Amino acid sequence: MSIEHIEVPANAPAGDTRDAAPDIRRRIARAVGDVRGRTPLAQSFTNFVTINLVANAQLAAGGTAAMSFLPDDIIDTAAISGADYINVGTLLPFYKDALPQVARAFHTASHPWVLDPVAAGIGATRTAILTSFKRWPPTIVRGNASEIIALDAMWGLGDADTASRPAGVESVDAVDSAVAAALRLARFMAAHNGIGKAAVAVSGAVDLVTDGEDVYRLPGGSAMMTKITGAGCSLGGVTAVYLAVADPLTAALASTALYNRAGEIAERHSAGPGSFQTALLDALWNLTAEQVAESEILRD
Amino acid sequence: MSIEHIEVPANAPAGDTRDAAPDIRRRIARAVGDVRGRTPLAQSFTNFVTINLVANAQLAAGGTAAMSFLPDDIIDTAAISGADYINVGTLLPFYKDALPQVARAFHTASHPWVLDPVAAGIGATRTAILTSFKRWPPTIVRGNASEIIALDAMWGLGDADTASRPAGVESVDAVDSAVAAALRLARFMAAHNGIGKAAVAVSGAVDLVTDGEDVYRLPGGSAMMTKITGAGCSLGGVTAVYLAVADPLTAALASTALYNRAGEIAERHSAGPGSFQTALLDALWNLTAEQVAESEILRD
Amino acid sequence: MSIEHIEVPANAPAGDTRDAAPDIRRRIARAVGDVRGRTPLAQSFTNFVTINLVANAQLAAGGTAAMSFLPDDIIDTAAISGADYINVGTLLPFYKDALPQVARAFHTASHPWVLDPVAAGIGATRTAILTSFKRWPPTIVRGNASEIIALDAMWGLGDADTASRPAGVESVDAVDSAVAAALRLARFMAAHNGIGKAAVAVSGAVDLVTDGEDVYRLPGGSAMMTKITGAGCSLGGVTAVYLAVADPLTAALASTALYNRAGEIAERHSAGPGSFQTALLDALWNLTAEQVAESEILRD
Repeated sequence: MSIEHIEVPANAPAGDTRDAAPDIRRRIARAVGDVRGRTPLAQSFTNFVTINLVANAQLAAGGTAAMSFLPDDIIDTAAISGADYINVGTLLPFYKDALPQVARAFHTASHPWVLDPVAAGIGATRTAILTSFKRWPPTIVRGNASEIIALDAMWGLGDADTASRPAGVESVDAVDSAVAAALRLARFMAAHNGIGKAAVAVSGAVDLVTDGEDVYRLPGGSAMMTKITGAGCSLGGVTAVYLAVADPLTAALASTALYNRAGEIAERHSAGPGSFQTALLDALWNLTAEQVAESEILRD
Repeated sequence: MSIEHIEVPANAPAGDTRDAAPDIRRRIARAVGDVRGRTPLAQSFTNFVTINLVANAQLAAGGTAAMSFLPDDIIDTAAISGADYINVGTLLPFYKDALPQVARAFHTASHPWVLDPVAAGIGATRTAILTSFKRWPPTIVRGNASEIIALDAMWGLGDADTASRPAGVESVDAVDSAVAAALRLARFMAAHNGIGKAAVAVSGAVDLVTDGEDVYRLPGGSAMMTKITGAGCSLGGVTAVYLAVADPLTAALASTALYNRAGEIAERHSAGPGSFQTALLDALWNLTAEQVAESEILRD
Repeated sequence: MSIEHIEVPANAPAGDTRDAAPDIRRRIARAVGDVRGRTPLAQSFTNFVTINLVANAQLAAGGTAAMSFLPDDIIDTAAISGADYINVGTLLPFYKDALPQVARAFHTASHPWVLDPVAAGIGATRTAILTSFKRWPPTIVRGNASEIIALDAMWGLGDADTASRPAGVESVDAVDSAVAAALRLARFMAAHNGIGKAAVAVSGAVDLVTDGEDVYRLPGGSAMMTKITGAGCSLGGVTAVYLAVADPLTAALASTALYNRAGEIAERHSAGPGSFQTALLDALWNLTAEQVAESEILRD
């Protein structure tokens, strides 16, 4: 595939021809600034392992957090939240009814939401829940390559033979192997989510974001992201914060770029995974809109 | 209203006439010292977002922590805990029966407990649970202004028209707007909780504490408290630790003053919300009884 | 009792007669190296208070983490996990059926697992669950002295009169008082767990590990371990990571030694419980196999 480089060198002239997407950068900078200015509320129905980091990352990025597991709570709060986040990492038995009920309510209200299909493919309950979301699709899906491939297969969008079995919550597939699944999911979601737009973000060594038309690649970040629990989950939560102020593609690009920059800073200021997590939250708080928007972004 | 200044300057003579409440300070200092000396157990039924911080803050303040969601566990453990903490931040369906059952058992045993009515006013299940507590009222309520106003309205103590809708878990009301509700709640609780005393603490830029008679204001703390999740919840848990060794008013004042001092120290020693939380726990551990008791405390 | 000193001085000749167990040290070093090299998956069904620290400690020690509460998930994932961890610290009503179902499935598959019997003796639900495990015993039990004594009594292995009531989640008994119970449990587990081997680890000022034959004592660690929540739980989770690559005795010894060394380093690099937890995770990540294997280990 041909990769088009759209990084804006800090000292490049405004009309630099290498920069294919100045508009993308402006939208990213505006989204980061809007989050800081408006402190939008994003509500989460998320797993018990990383729920604290999700909330802290949403606050550090400039948003406001609320967490719940009860449909009555969630549907009440969705009226005042800019976007919601659903993460299926740890399930309780009653989620089998509660999560489809919540997704249906979001759909009825055209309320934007982000899905993190953690461990897609493992367990009959998780499969039933994720399968139900095909009727009320999210606005953004963020996961690793294995999860994106599994969700695409569950929804029957591509060739079921491409489905791979995830290694627990870790991806066993490279980001490149999920490009076709990500494109299919984004197109299906945009057509059926009632919002008319969608994005899929695939986390990996080089992250991938697509709106079903263009495919963007975001290098960078830190390998230490995989040595703490919840880097992906909290990115999903922060994506919902951005979705409260921006379109799906911009929200997915801005949050992914923010995390890559924060991960790089945290790696330089830490001596192991404990201090890395602390430094990551500090970096999410301190990064400027300009620093995020200057990230390297490649378009296929 | 007239504000009476009861701060004790560090070098003030013992009988300084500006200090209207040397007795309050002695009680605060004694409570802090007693917690450090006795490491009292406070048990919590609290939300999943901040449960870890609640336990760590209780330990850092000098207490011992135990967390549970099962009535059989909680009622067993209440026999050896000095006080309990209930926080309704994240609810599961079975709490609708479990929480009233637990509150009733505390009432029967005249067991002191602290309530944090997180997000009061949102969701039918939460409203049902909080309403049920009117029959078995807590010893202390700690919340933000919106939550205190909502609880007062739910219990029908004042004018229902004063109820305001909380913005998720964040307060949309100023502390001053909750003074009347806090006074009514404290009086009602003292009359009906079986303990005969009560306190209400309202968190805000300047915190407010009342026993239903006097109203105290505690300035200070740090705006970074609102940029981590769980500052309020963990203060509630620490209040229960203090309630295990002190009367309700002293427990509410001491824990609020401790948090304000710890927040100020943490802000000076941190570079963002990640390092702020770390420094907050360190400060809770290192503050002396004298430092807490020297806090600025104003009486209306 | 006679205590045999098996510490290997760094500069001792290979055949130093004071070192009774060079084989033990080689096995510990190999286990630490194997975890770092293979990043084995250990799955956990654990409490909500410390679930995040358990996962982060497993990652920092070099393993991979997955957490779940649904039998269908857990049984699916056990097929790819090297060992599992069950911690009964916070229970929900449905665990009464789910946990015995999971233990039975592990037994049928001869799948190794670690049990942390948190607060054994408190609550009818917890007692019913822990009692059920006698039919499908774990491979390793890790707990404090009070919990080990309570589990031994629940399973009717010794003299019921020795049972003591735990003080919530804190031990009220000294490690020495649990030696007989630990030996009985380890022998019973080895005879009935379908693995043919077992170990019991008792945490305390000086930790104790036994396979039912030999009794090892591991001094060191830090008193700050008791001032954060989850030092014991996360040690249990890391023990499961080691059990994925080593026999039960080696796994229990290696993880206990790793924690003692990490605790000592963290205490030197921290100013309170907040920074202690951060430094503990960093130390788990940075310690070498040689540093862990050089730990002082005494054999009774």
